[in-house]
Amino acid sequence: MKTLHSYLGDRWVEGSGPLQTLMNPATEEPLAQVSSEGLDVAAALEHARRKGGPALRTLSFAERGMLLKEMSKAIQAHRDELLDLAVANGGNTRSDAKFDVDGAIFTLQTYAEIGASLGAAKFLVDGEGVQLGRSPRFHGQHINVPRHGVAVQINAFNFPAWGFAEKAASALLAGMPVFSKPATSSAMVAHRVMEILVEKKILPEGTLSLLAGGHGDLPALLGPQDVLAFTGSGDTGARIRALRNVLLESVRVNIEADSLNAAVLGPDAEPGGDMYETFLKDVLRDMTQKAGQKCTAIRRVLVPAEQAVTVRNDLAEGLKAVRVGNPALEETRMGPLATHAQLTDVREGVGKLGAEGKAVFGSAAPLGGKGFFISPVLMEFPKDSLASAVHSREVFGPVASLLPYSGKAAHAAEIVARGNGGLVSSVYSEDAAFLEEIVSGIAPYHGRLFLGHPKIEMSPGPGTVLPQLVHGGPGRAGGGEELGGARALSFYMQRVALEGSRPVIQKLVGVQPA
Amino acid sequence: MKTLHSYLGDRWVEGSGPLQTLMNPATEEPLAQVSSEGLDVAAALEHARRKGGPALRTLSFAERGMLLKEMSKAIQAHRDELLDLAVANGGNTRSDAKFDVDGAIFTLQTYAEIGASLGAAKFLVDGEGVQLGRSPRFHGQHINVPRHGVAVQINAFNFPAWGFAEKAASALLAGMPVFSKPATSSAMVAHRVMEILVEKKILPEGTLSLLAGGHGDLPALLGPQDVLAFTGSGDTGARIRALRNVLLESVRVNIEADSLNAAVLGPDAEPGGDMYETFLKDVLRDMTQKAGQKCTAIRRVLVPAEQAVTVRNDLAEGLKAVRVGNPALEETRMGPLATHAQLTDVREGVGKLGAEGKAVFGSAAPLGGKGFFISPVLMEFPKDSLASAVHSREVFGPVASLLPYSGKAAHAAEIVARGNGGLVSSVYSEDAAFLEEIVSGIAPYHGRLFLGHPKIEMSPGPGTVLPQLVHGGPGRAGGGEELGGARALSFYMQRVALEGSRPVIQKLVGVQPA
Repeated sequence: MKTLHSYLGDRWVEGSGPLQTLMNPATEEPLAQVSSEGLDVAAALEHARRKGGPALRTLSFAERGMLLKEMSKAIQAHRDELLDLAVANGGNTRSDAKFDVDGAIFTLQTYAEIGASLGAAKFLVDGEGVQLGRSPRFHGQHINVPRHGVAVQINAFNFPAWGFAEKAASALLAGMPVFSKPATSSAMVAHRVMEILVEKKILPEGTLSLLAGGHGDLPALLGPQDVLAFTGSGDTGARIRALRNVLLESVRVNIEADSLNAAVLGPDAEPGGDMYETFLKDVLRDMTQKAGQKCTAIRRVLVPAEQAVTVRNDLAEGLKAVRVGNPALEETRMGPLATHAQLTDVREGVGKLGAEGKAVFGSAAPLGGKGFFISPVLMEFPKDSLASAVHSREVFGPVASLLPYSGKAAHAAEIVARGNGGLVSSVYSEDAAFLEEIVSGIAPYHGRLFLGHPKIEMSPGPGTVLPQLVHGGPGRAGGGEELGGARALSFYMQRVALEGSRPVIQKLVGVQPA
Repeated sequence: MKTLHSYLGDRWVEGSGPLQTLMNPATEEPLAQVSSEGLDVAAALEHARRKGGPALRTLSFAERGMLLKEMSKAIQAHRDELLDLAVANGGNTRSDAKFDVDGAIFTLQTYAEIGASLGAAKFLVDGEGVQLGRSPRFHGQHINVPRHGVAVQINAFNFPAWGFAEKAASALLAGMPVFSKPATSSAMVAHRVMEILVEKKILPEGTLSLLAGGHGDLPALLGPQDVLAFTGSGDTGARIRALRNVLLESVRVNIEADSLNAAVLGPDAEPGGDMYETFLKDVLRDMTQKAGQKCTAIRRVLVPAEQAVTVRNDLAEGLKAVRVGNPALEETRMGPLATHAQLTDVREGVGKLGAEGKAVFGSAAPLGGKGFFISPVLMEFPKDSLASAVHSREVFGPVASLLPYSGKAAHAAEIVARGNGGLVSSVYSEDAAFLEEIVSGIAPYHGRLFLGHPKIEMSPGPGTVLPQLVHGGPGRAGGGEELGGARALSFYMQRVALEGSRPVIQKLVGVQPA
């Protein structure tokens, strides 16, 4: 069986402790093993800071963008191999796997283009210069410079390729070395990506490291110039935030955590109409794509009370047609959950929802046989329900809940807001007044609002994160922000105001400190 | 004796517990008393969220700016009274008091102008719209909308007027109600400002609250739409960050904490020359203004080793001329520290510095008599000293340390960086290569770099925070950011990406949701 090594200090190293086994979640067949114990993570972080940071800072944005372009091309060249690995190790259907791997390729490519557009500069000029005194000589200019630390990036199990790529692209383009830690259960894809990049010798020394296996005390090793981007559960995020070094040294932390994303059907979207069909398609896709294991998947479905029965029946019909099984088989539409732990967690979550609502399609009952399979589950709650779990417990699987509302935007907004902050919600309406009221009501609770529209061809729906738009959300979602085009760079940079004599500052900003 | 009341839920209320006494730090005469015990802070926060937030959100930026203008004018109309209070309760010289009160007036006025420039909009459009698909119909647009919570602002004792004004101006202009908590020891100025604003009925109901006395469990009462801006010690900041609600609900927290601000004299700045004189003036001003109780004051003075004796003698001569005494007397150049606790802390800090370096001017010995007075103290360290307290212990008084360096920019940068992140550092050099190297070396460790220049008339030096430039810093300084013109608004707003059909989004953004 293959043993996954870590890439630290520019060489492949092997942990010494008891090995953890990675498996095929459809067959429970063991695929690889890994351990990070005994590895000198502190030395590897310091190597990245001392060697990788200075190397990147000597490059311009355009040059860093070229590195991303090469990374994108290298992954593209191994696409089929990576898709196969994602099917085997991730429980992904081929379509799910493409969503991950092609997402990685596209995101790297997008940031390569952003790098090209930023050109020969090595830091960002932030806004216009400003006159500070009565004479124009006294001048201020903000700039953004790369931080002098290392960017540690801890990714979730559901997007081993894309998660790596979207975080790494932002940090590398900003000028910070990347220390990536994939989730262990699905690490084979991220590990193979790393092998490919190392083989191709694309990146300067010290700029990319990979820790395979448990993260140990990695977050506790970070200092005031380091940053930590974490995607995963809110509980783990809170534990990271509570670390002594994070509290006392202001280690910059970005968290993407739980989110009870809502889809709101407007009262004008009549069953059978185009808008209604767009809504149905998005809900069904989000429930079943990657077996619902997307942080952006629709969890709460708000429908005008008078449409609740129709929507329930239409969704049930759609879900019935979803063939669940081994994703290696072509006819399979939905694969298993990623791990046994996830299966247990989803079953428990469905139980929590069921204590306050009722299942109207599927159940969390075991399906029998090998693999971490579960049926899609549609829950329903009565109008004006005071249920709390549906607004607070993210069930990370093919599970969504129907919530009837009055048909008034204010009512829908109030229900959506009970989620206490999320990554994305979607609205399906062509009624301008309804849209305006709900958008103003729920915008502060989200990082993104998807406004469904039947005329958008090839619409990816709310569940797809695009590199041009920010990804993150307030409150329960972690209060973080990633991507959003060039906005992504600011997390990896320090904004600093230069204050003084105008000619001196203009020379400095023109000359561009390395 | 006057009892300070709190303004909660749009009325003046009085705490019920044991009273704390505010005094004149020059005479130890009691001036007022206060208690916040028994006050229903949770209800007051909810009042602000339910009443103040919606009221502000119906106003445009220009209208919110008008409120700030009225606030500025009201404070201006009571300027003399406020200056007298600052002298009595803050231990400020009249010049120190102006620095605080005029800073408040100017900052409110600046944000009033920013409001006017943002015009009739109620939210901010963030960047250009972006085409997301092959057809221009699939469109994205980022906007910034006011958060739906309350902005709690906990201020430090040293700037009761300016601290209130700079935080309140940013939040109110962004569209969030303000709940202000001044430091108790110097609260008379902030309390009087509040009385003036309430008497004038400038602000809509629910938009401004004041908690006088201890903050109790205020930070623990905040939720995912609330924000907390705190200025004070790093330890208190860390305790706020470690609160359960802050960790789990991603309460947005901005911290301005400790900072070992450095001033670097370049090797080209010859004693007696204009640049050298500018440097001397800035160091002397920062050491003694407000008795060194400024978070931006110069704490570490880096000088080329060959100039160390000259600089020491020149600074000592300047400090000898500073008359310390009751700030109510016109001849006084430096008043007392704000409280007995501050005096104890500064004495302890000087002891810590003295264990690794030596005092070359003044000492922490008691001056005798009433009042919390201390002499200015200049410490000196040998070149290549491995002293640690000088880079980690912020001594919040008229105390600075001389640190000789080789004259090379890289060496100075390495020493400055040992501070682990600060609010501002300053450089005094006209050598372009030296400036470029040191700026690129220390920029990531700061929120602001002040480049001293003799040709800037009326230069305020590095210690003055200007509303147009960001104030904050990474690492030890708390990792926060305030001010910076319109940049200040983003802390009080949620960035959200609108994704969908271009005409729908353009209508929404044009129409401006309230």
